[in-house]
Amino acid sequence: MQINGKHYRTIWVKEGNEPTIQVIDQRRLPHALVIEDLDMPEDFARAIREMHVRGAPLIGVTAAYGMYNALFHAPADKRRLGKYIRDAADELKKTRPTAINLAHAVDRVLNAIESVEEPGEMIELARQTADAITEESVEHCRAIGEYGLEVIQKISKKKKGEPVNILTHCNAGWLACIDYGTATAPIYAAHEAGIPIHVWVDETRPRNQGANITAYELLHHGVPNTVITDNAGGHLMQHGMVDLVIVGSDRTTLRGDVANKVGTYLKALAARDNRVPFYVALPSSSFDWSLNDGLKEIPIEERDPDEVRYVHGWFNGKIYKVLITPQDTRAANYAFDVTPAGLVTGLITERGICKASRRGIQKLFPEAGK
Amino acid sequence: MQINGKHYRTIWVKEGNEPTIQVIDQRRLPHALVIEDLDMPEDFARAIREMHVRGAPLIGVTAAYGMYNALFHAPADKRRLGKYIRDAADELKKTRPTAINLAHAVDRVLNAIESVEEPGEMIELARQTADAITEESVEHCRAIGEYGLEVIQKISKKKKGEPVNILTHCNAGWLACIDYGTATAPIYAAHEAGIPIHVWVDETRPRNQGANITAYELLHHGVPNTVITDNAGGHLMQHGMVDLVIVGSDRTTLRGDVANKVGTYLKALAARDNRVPFYVALPSSSFDWSLNDGLKEIPIEERDPDEVRYVHGWFNGKIYKVLITPQDTRAANYAFDVTPAGLVTGLITERGICKASRRGIQKLFPEAGK
Repeated sequence: MQINGKHYRTIWVKEGNEPTIQVIDQRRLPHALVIEDLDMPEDFARAIREMHVRGAPLIGVTAAYGMYNALFHAPADKRRLGKYIRDAADELKKTRPTAINLAHAVDRVLNAIESVEEPGEMIELARQTADAITEESVEHCRAIGEYGLEVIQKISKKKKGEPVNILTHCNAGWLACIDYGTATAPIYAAHEAGIPIHVWVDETRPRNQGANITAYELLHHGVPNTVITDNAGGHLMQHGMVDLVIVGSDRTTLRGDVANKVGTYLKALAARDNRVPFYVALPSSSFDWSLNDGLKEIPIEERDPDEVRYVHGWFNGKIYKVLITPQDTRAANYAFDVTPAGLVTGLITERGICKASRRGIQKLFPEAGK
Repeated sequence: MQINGKHYRTIWVKEGNEPTIQVIDQRRLPHALVIEDLDMPEDFARAIREMHVRGAPLIGVTAAYGMYNALFHAPADKRRLGKYIRDAADELKKTRPTAINLAHAVDRVLNAIESVEEPGEMIELARQTADAITEESVEHCRAIGEYGLEVIQKISKKKKGEPVNILTHCNAGWLACIDYGTATAPIYAAHEAGIPIHVWVDETRPRNQGANITAYELLHHGVPNTVITDNAGGHLMQHGMVDLVIVGSDRTTLRGDVANKVGTYLKALAARDNRVPFYVALPSSSFDWSLNDGLKEIPIEERDPDEVRYVHGWFNGKIYKVLITPQDTRAANYAFDVTPAGLVTGLITERGICKASRRGIQKLFPEAGK
């Protein structure tokens, strides 16, 4: 997608400087666009742990390239190689232990190099695997965009070309992925197709990924958007100002319950109360076939209460962290909530759109729950 | 209520220094407790306009004392007195044109002094009227507390002494009134009665009145509380962590629709979905008998989008205003939303608790809609 009129992905190999990888340092967004070189294995672990990169798909790809980079710097002594590779993999996996596709990506590189012994060949295979994960992620997002586009097209026809107002929560955008995004993919596809759209961007407290990142990527790609507080969506829906809600998913159960950034459930309730379609866009990697009842079975991460007590923002060319509560106030920070399948109009996946139910999911994913 | 172990109201006459009035400068809360002297008529207008004081009941009382202060500084020349009084009243009324009880308070002082001519007598009557409005407001809040206490007592009995978890949105606390508050009055009454309670405080973006003010007043009065983002309430209710919601009201229609700070509606939806009782505490002055359908008839104030784009917070001993969106991002700032009567369990008023319906309201307020 575009930043300042130029096409970017969130991560790429620095041409002519392999195995250096470049990423957008997302801690500085939306206030500054900083491209960071990841030169050494420890740079990759730090970038994931300290959230220079974030979003499950992007974290996975970063870890895969981290393995590729680590192999480049492997010891010449072959007796030490096995332990070196295991350590490198463990180091990457433990950076964000809850993001399941981080472990998957690292394991996929490990599997690819398992049967070879020649270091040059290992490097080549690791690179091919990381590239493949990258392109698959892009392709999944592109397909989600194409299926979601049909939903937007139908609404646009009903509105006779009046802009379609789409509300989204948090950042399930291209900056959380490699390109296109998940919840944003249909939005970009509609924009590309010349359908007039407008996006309501929930700011998404406490970390403000909506205000910081979704607003930034839509602004730079030229998609009309307006930032609102997380409190405002219900009012907008009551007054017919939202035609469609699209959000992402961090984990989706076999019966279609969806765990996503905290506050998603409140928007789903308002959507039902006002008959606004509520879609969840997700690559199939977010399914967890082992779970059924999301409310009972998905563990909800509790994060540092200081994310609630403090806000990061830009003043006079610098990022400040300011306190918004009394110094001694207690705060709680539940990072996700679960939207029951009954509130979800449909799941938009890379294989098509299905009902948020076991039967609906199994139509597209016959392998589910087997 | 208590601040640093000392009893305060939000406004009082400075003893021995009449007609100077003292208020808490709420722009500095929760970071500093600053008591401000209002010496001259223009100080009162500025304090209301620039939100040193806020909350409809407190604004009304401040304006009434503003009239008393103005009469103290009236010209000796009796031919100029009439115009001077009218100008003083207009100046106060136009500071916050939407708060209806500001105009009511000023008019009540004007009515009280209408029939007298002697300046000393006028001053005395203005003072008596301002004092009376103050005491009525305190008495209404105290009564709301007593009626609301019964609701909390019942839940406490069911929970066999486990803390009753009460969620509130925005600040309908004593700092918005003179003492006790509206939504907080039952909370303080329960605390006083020794019932174990715990309050979930919605931070209430964009102006953070929950994080700034409600958290401050509960902390100082010793009521256990935890600040959460506006996104979190649904998750808490899904997991049985909220026993009761109590909010205030800015305007209540004849059939019981309630306009309150934006986001209230989302919490009401979550309360219904999880069978959590949802009460609105209000002095009868918040009723607008002339309206019926709140969604269609109550105008919703749109405020400065910069309240969304920027956050005020404390850093290194100073209040900073930091930007949280891209510089050029559009934002929208709807300040209130309407919760339909059907989502409201009951209205807690100074005359008792009633259903949020025309019939329910008219039982307590036979004068309603006549």
